Amino acid sequence: MVLGVEYEGTRFAGWQIQPNQRTVQGCLQHAIGTISSYTGKVVAAGRTDSGVHALSQVIHFDTPSVRSERNWILGMNSHLPSDINVIWAREVETDFSARFSAVRRSYRYLLINRIGRSSIYADNMWWLFKTLDEQCMQDAADLLVGYHDFSAFRAKDCQAKNTMKNIELIKITRRGHLIAIDIVAKSFLHRMVRNIVGVLVLIGEKTRPVSWAKLVLESRDRGQGGVTSPPQGLYFVNVEYPTQYLLPTVSDFSILW
Amino acid sequence: MVLGVEYEGTRFAGWQIQPNQRTVQGCLQHAIGTISSYTGKVVAAGRTDSGVHALSQVIHFDTPSVRSERNWILGMNSHLPSDINVIWAREVETDFSARFSAVRRSYRYLLINRIGRSSIYADNMWWLFKTLDEQCMQDAADLLVGYHDFSAFRAKDCQAKNTMKNIELIKITRRGHLIAIDIVAKSFLHRMVRNIVGVLVLIGEKTRPVSWAKLVLESRDRGQGGVTSPPQGLYFVNVEYPTQYLLPTVSDFSILW
Repeated sequence: MVLGVEYEGTRFAGWQIQPNQRTVQGCLQHAIGTISSYTGKVVAAGRTDSGVHALSQVIHFDTPSVRSERNWILGMNSHLPSDINVIWAREVETDFSARFSAVRRSYRYLLINRIGRSSIYADNMWWLFKTLDEQCMQDAADLLVGYHDFSAFRAKDCQAKNTMKNIELIKITRRGHLIAIDIVAKSFLHRMVRNIVGVLVLIGEKTRPVSWAKLVLESRDRGQGGVTSPPQGLYFVNVEYPTQYLLPTVSDFSILW
Repeated sequence: MVLGVEYEGTRFAGWQIQPNQRTVQGCLQHAIGTISSYTGKVVAAGRTDSGVHALSQVIHFDTPSVRSERNWILGMNSHLPSDINVIWAREVETDFSARFSAVRRSYRYLLINRIGRSSIYADNMWWLFKTLDEQCMQDAADLLVGYHDFSAFRAKDCQAKNTMKNIELIKITRRGHLIAIDIVAKSFLHRMVRNIVGVLVLIGEKTRPVSWAKLVLESRDRGQGGVTSPPQGLYFVNVEYPTQYLLPTVSDFSILW
């Protein structure tokens, strides 16, 4: 069974199940076990960190239970806390993996850039009061697009053996006080998006020149980078799979302003 | 002094100060008293209900304290809780009233219309799972635009003597699963926006015909209307004043999607 899952990350200790912690995986496995005869492990397209949100995380699990898509959605939601919910459900062929079948993952990072903080967006954006030059940020981002060794942008505890990743797109959009940073790749290293945002912000506020992005990249040294941007601005917005699986396309990507 | 104020209404018992309640007015008056020598009353452009949000509420108060606009913003925000904040500050002529000088008020009501609820928007939109026909809603809304007696759309406890109001605009916009209802008038009766939304929703889900909006309006009887829509979908987005006061124009109206 494959489900599309939305969550507000603020009160979760991230995706991955851990003892004595409130996790997205833990809540989902509990709900699945309650409404079906399955009590095994759920696999996600991306294991988000504490505080990070998801508009359309994709998960899969095996289950002998048969119910309509509508009943999966409503049944799951009646056993999930209010900050996590299922948005779609689909039965697929057994060779499908939410993690390994994914061909493209999209993240959006939201910044609010004005002198006053925002109450409405406090848990949902990163507030920066120094004016950011979004064109400088885009120019720097363009230096990172493509197939590179992203060692300088991965978390200390990142366990990936292969640090080569291919960023297909980084797009910076400003609308009034709000800035969105969209990043698309087949896969990412741990904290890679938040570390990229940390570098782009230092360039946007003119603390560093545009060319610094390339220096950081080529150093392959996390110590050369910027701060890790805080989790509340980050949204896992979309995952794409080969069309043969006929999964729903989520078009709500652009709603998060 | 005039301030633009944003707040997340979820944890407030509304604008108006009340004993033993956490109110927006109470928090603002406390912060103003802390950073200046003023301990009087603050007047708002609109007194929002419990749970209703504001992107740019406008308030005024008299104070002998002199400080820069930037210092008003930062000073106030350091003494306000995280769910309320000042976004701009301006000194104006003494004949200005946040309430009585206003020439136009804009509200936006947000609906999420899909089978699954939304965690990210739980406190910020009204979730309706029956599919809404936004064209029917717009046709019904068009019957309410103009100068009418809106008695059928006011709260029981509304104390206004004059129930004639002039709605300048009602615009329904759908973007994927989200529907925004924008309503503009010089002033409104108590709960008028939420009661209008309640009627439009019953028409959108085809429980009632488009023409029902006119029947409700002409009845002048609140008992003929629909439900009052819940407060968490409502945003007080903008207030306009005569240009002579040179107040900032807030362009963030459209960001709330």
